[in-house]
Amino acid sequence: MIIMGIDPGLRFNGFGIIEYNSLQFKHIANGTFKTNEKLSLPERLSQIYLNLTDIIKTYKPEEVAVEEVFVNVNPSSTLKLGQARGVAILTPSLLGIKVFEYSPNLIKKAVVGVGHASKEQIQMMVKLLLSNPVIDSEHSADALAMAICHAHNRNKII
Amino acid sequence: MIIMGIDPGLRFNGFGIIEYNSLQFKHIANGTFKTNEKLSLPERLSQIYLNLTDIIKTYKPEEVAVEEVFVNVNPSSTLKLGQARGVAILTPSLLGIKVFEYSPNLIKKAVVGVGHASKEQIQMMVKLLLSNPVIDSEHSADALAMAICHAHNRNKII
Repeated sequence: MIIMGIDPGLRFNGFGIIEYNSLQFKHIANGTFKTNEKLSLPERLSQIYLNLTDIIKTYKPEEVAVEEVFVNVNPSSTLKLGQARGVAILTPSLLGIKVFEYSPNLIKKAVVGVGHASKEQIQMMVKLLLSNPVIDSEHSADALAMAICHAHNRNKII
Repeated sequence: MIIMGIDPGLRFNGFGIIEYNSLQFKHIANGTFKTNEKLSLPERLSQIYLNLTDIIKTYKPEEVAVEEVFVNVNPSSTLKLGQARGVAILTPSLLGIKVFEYSPNLIKKAVVGVGHASKEQIQMMVKLLLSNPVIDSEHSADALAMAICHAHNRNKII
């Protein structure tokens, strides 16, 4: 089964694709794309939609995982993230792909073994679990962690 | 020219369609749709996308207006609104329709003549300007006000 993680943002979007069978994970791809800050909000949201649609059509994930958001202290950042996140969740959903949300702690626990872990620890464990792929960015590392978390938990929830 | 206003929300979405020529406004339609709270977030965002796509394909607006958001005191509401708003802005944009954002004060000023006005005053003036249409809800009244505001301001900004 192919699983995709998405780490959305109005500026940076990370994605990570893994293949999972009952015994192991395999890294398929990870990457990051950036929206053009000079464009309007509608155009940037369209960029997110179109890029994610391309990635989904290329790698054909069967399920998608995203991180639950614990709202930012800065309300204006929360609104921006919300708008990008709405589009990122809509995109696979319109293609008939189920989207699952996981808390940051559950994602860390699935990858590192404990609910509190640094960005570096997560990235190190993601590399270890996936046989040392080149990681494009912290956003794509987080997206791979979401995909791993879903692989761990999907049998419990589906 | 046909102009559409959208008042998005994760729960209630209002829309208003007017026809505008240099001399006058004409009411075409207004309405409200509600997402099903029992569905998941991806499903509710898809409902918003699919309903708005239907409405846009029915009335063929050439331009869309939305209200700028002044972020809520409640961060969790801001995130929910952000997700719905992202989808509402994306939808016309993907169909090649330009989306314009206006501040609440500018919308009130365009409709009532002053930047501070109650919901009731706005609804009354919307009815007066559009020859007394039946208003479906406060959400669709707000959406009509956004469309009127854009009609007033589009020559200044385009």
